[in-house]
Amino acid sequence: MNDVLDFINVHRDRYIDELTHYLAIPSISALPEHAADVRRAATWTAEALRTAGMQNVRLVETPGQPVVYGDWLGAPGKPTILFYGHYDVQPVDPLDLWTTPPFEATVRDGELYARGAADDKGQVFMHIKAVEAFIKQTGGLPVNMRFCIEGEEEVGSANLDTFIRDHKEELAADVVVISDSPMFDRGVPSICYGLRGLAYFQIDLRGTKSDLHSGSFGGAVANPAFVLTQILSQMKDRGGRVKIPGFYDDVRPLSDAEREEWKKLPFSETKYRKELGAPRLFGEKGYSTLERVWARPTLEVNGLLSGFTGDGAKTVLPAVAMAKVSMRLVPDQSPDTVAELFEAYVKKLCPPTVTLTVTRMHGGKPWMTEFNNKFVRAAGRAIEQGFGQTPVFSREGGSIPVVSTFQDELGLPSVLFGVGLPDENAHAPDEKLDLGNFHNGVIASAYLYQEIANLE
Amino acid sequence: MNDVLDFINVHRDRYIDELTHYLAIPSISALPEHAADVRRAATWTAEALRTAGMQNVRLVETPGQPVVYGDWLGAPGKPTILFYGHYDVQPVDPLDLWTTPPFEATVRDGELYARGAADDKGQVFMHIKAVEAFIKQTGGLPVNMRFCIEGEEEVGSANLDTFIRDHKEELAADVVVISDSPMFDRGVPSICYGLRGLAYFQIDLRGTKSDLHSGSFGGAVANPAFVLTQILSQMKDRGGRVKIPGFYDDVRPLSDAEREEWKKLPFSETKYRKELGAPRLFGEKGYSTLERVWARPTLEVNGLLSGFTGDGAKTVLPAVAMAKVSMRLVPDQSPDTVAELFEAYVKKLCPPTVTLTVTRMHGGKPWMTEFNNKFVRAAGRAIEQGFGQTPVFSREGGSIPVVSTFQDELGLPSVLFGVGLPDENAHAPDEKLDLGNFHNGVIASAYLYQEIANLE
Repeated sequence: MNDVLDFINVHRDRYIDELTHYLAIPSISALPEHAADVRRAATWTAEALRTAGMQNVRLVETPGQPVVYGDWLGAPGKPTILFYGHYDVQPVDPLDLWTTPPFEATVRDGELYARGAADDKGQVFMHIKAVEAFIKQTGGLPVNMRFCIEGEEEVGSANLDTFIRDHKEELAADVVVISDSPMFDRGVPSICYGLRGLAYFQIDLRGTKSDLHSGSFGGAVANPAFVLTQILSQMKDRGGRVKIPGFYDDVRPLSDAEREEWKKLPFSETKYRKELGAPRLFGEKGYSTLERVWARPTLEVNGLLSGFTGDGAKTVLPAVAMAKVSMRLVPDQSPDTVAELFEAYVKKLCPPTVTLTVTRMHGGKPWMTEFNNKFVRAAGRAIEQGFGQTPVFSREGGSIPVVSTFQDELGLPSVLFGVGLPDENAHAPDEKLDLGNFHNGVIASAYLYQEIANLE
Repeated sequence: MNDVLDFINVHRDRYIDELTHYLAIPSISALPEHAADVRRAATWTAEALRTAGMQNVRLVETPGQPVVYGDWLGAPGKPTILFYGHYDVQPVDPLDLWTTPPFEATVRDGELYARGAADDKGQVFMHIKAVEAFIKQTGGLPVNMRFCIEGEEEVGSANLDTFIRDHKEELAADVVVISDSPMFDRGVPSICYGLRGLAYFQIDLRGTKSDLHSGSFGGAVANPAFVLTQILSQMKDRGGRVKIPGFYDDVRPLSDAEREEWKKLPFSETKYRKELGAPRLFGEKGYSTLERVWARPTLEVNGLLSGFTGDGAKTVLPAVAMAKVSMRLVPDQSPDTVAELFEAYVKKLCPPTVTLTVTRMHGGKPWMTEFNNKFVRAAGRAIEQGFGQTPVFSREGGSIPVVSTFQDELGLPSVLFGVGLPDENAHAPDEKLDLGNFHNGVIASAYLYQEIANLE
């Protein structure tokens, strides 16, 4: 293990240099014009796995972007880790809010700024480098490993479920390791044992066949932008509670024990509010901020577009209006059930003066695990060795739908081994990765493989 | 008069050719990047006036775009017409809904398609050509005329009031003629005796300092896009009535006589609805469509923008949300009073979880005249001679704020002598001008000068 750690410490700067090249590829899966870039990132990932010493590395084609697969199975009798990550990234708009260009990774104050730095290229690369250190120094890994890195995570992993179902044997393993989440706080490493699910929609309204002059026609026909505000405003009450009938029916109540545990976490609502730059915090009545984000479902408007949005004033009565709306779900809500409730409610709210289209964009189940299973405990020890601190056990407000798929299709538990930070701006301008955490993360990843090898 | 009409008939095709060049200039006053184009349209307008035989033609500078002035004062003892129009145009987005490019004027089925074809370059050009025909054929005009063509009408005529106040002597006249409105219907020429006013605003909300991941933070802070829908949805009730306290206090009720008169107009709600492509008509309860558009105030959302609006799904919790909102006003509402009521109401509705900015964009007073004054009657006779039909007397839902300014500052009545059509798409894609109406309009304009010359 010391040889492995030496290697990691010696090559620290090279890792950043290589990661910078990875981050230079604008692999934005949401934008069709970047399809070739996404594929380029797949090829780059495969090449990095080969360089690290992984075997059978190849791109597995899907109807969308390929899955990068590679394995090293030279430890018979030892457990097998299935590592999952993604090489695609979020869009970068609004571009003018980036301090430096999103695809020119730049170090400032010990942080590496770039789209994908934390979500998820940086964390994928952390494992590739831990594998490389092991193989270069010891000729192999202490466990068997399979990498499965997809390119459509940011657009709902549409083809991943099929891929998993079609490759069950190749994906046979004992545990899934995923590094795609932030730690609890800077200096407070954590193991995440719960995730929210997702149900994402687009609502389109049409009032008239074309935009109209708001003077000549204002008052004579329904304005789809206004109707949209009427519909959306009915989604939550003033207390932040979702008004969709039946929405809370399957929500598992927070246990008193969990609430007590969370109260002990080093969390300051004031600091949190200031970091976000919000005038006040706001959420569902009767719950703390951590409870709202980790254990309560929510509904958010992700986007609005209608009519004239440039500088100045255009007196237009818009023909169409569009909203992106998504819900975060918690155990035991089902994305499909919620989708039906949502669609029925929107249809009920929509007046006959406009035509309505509701499009399901994507969904993902919420997930929770027992945090005293052996893999989670092994991960806790690895984090402690990499970061010099005992991790706290936390949940996360985001979604990693594939965690449920691994559970359902392969019967595998997942360990969420994330080294991001809550202020990493994962889906926002100035996304960043703390280079200290990255370095400790490579070490912790190496320890993780060793700890899992030592199990039994 | 016959010589003048001959000239107009002979040069009919040349007019279209010249107008096409005028329409090729993208003089979009709302977009700063088109400032030079707007100025180019001013120069073009001035040159066209000179070619027509107008004198003292020049660009009068303002803090914004220049006013094009020109006069012909060779008819001592005769009335003086002050002709007002504008050479700037509306923005063209969404560009993909134009059948042919907005600045490449194209004739289809007797209609000339281009931005500005009807609003207002085409109608300005109609008068320039009527003047040209008179001067070329008779050596002069039967009346005195002053042209005053501005370049900021589509952005609220910010500098026109000052221009008028500073040039009262140069603008001395007996009547203002404006051709910037549609006729009642195809084949139903009309004289417009009332206009709605305008109060236009931008609302900006900020929730946090930057966009956030909607999974990690959804439920913990107010979502400005959602708050925006809550605020806007409170602007009108389900019956289409504006809920701003005091909004209707100064609204002059429709007289029974006027309502009776309008019921006689050849107007089909079914045809109107079908032309607009609306599933149903909708507006304030208790009023007909014509009443809603001509004589009742309204509130419209002109634009919405927040978060992610591209294809696909981005799980963002937006930092900011923006709406453009405007109200059309009727006599005796005041734009300033309504602005204060609106701002106070928005502030009252906005929760302390977001920061609010309300920006006044522009406003204009509503206007009405007596339709039996001598100039209106002269215009009626001119229309009858140009179109072979007695015009109906109508109001218009749009705003021409300068009409009030001419009344207030110069004490002048206005004659709204418009030859556009209700389906001209003035502020929408595929704006068009009916070439038959244009030709009849040049003839009617020539008759108008003669009819006004004959007054006393």
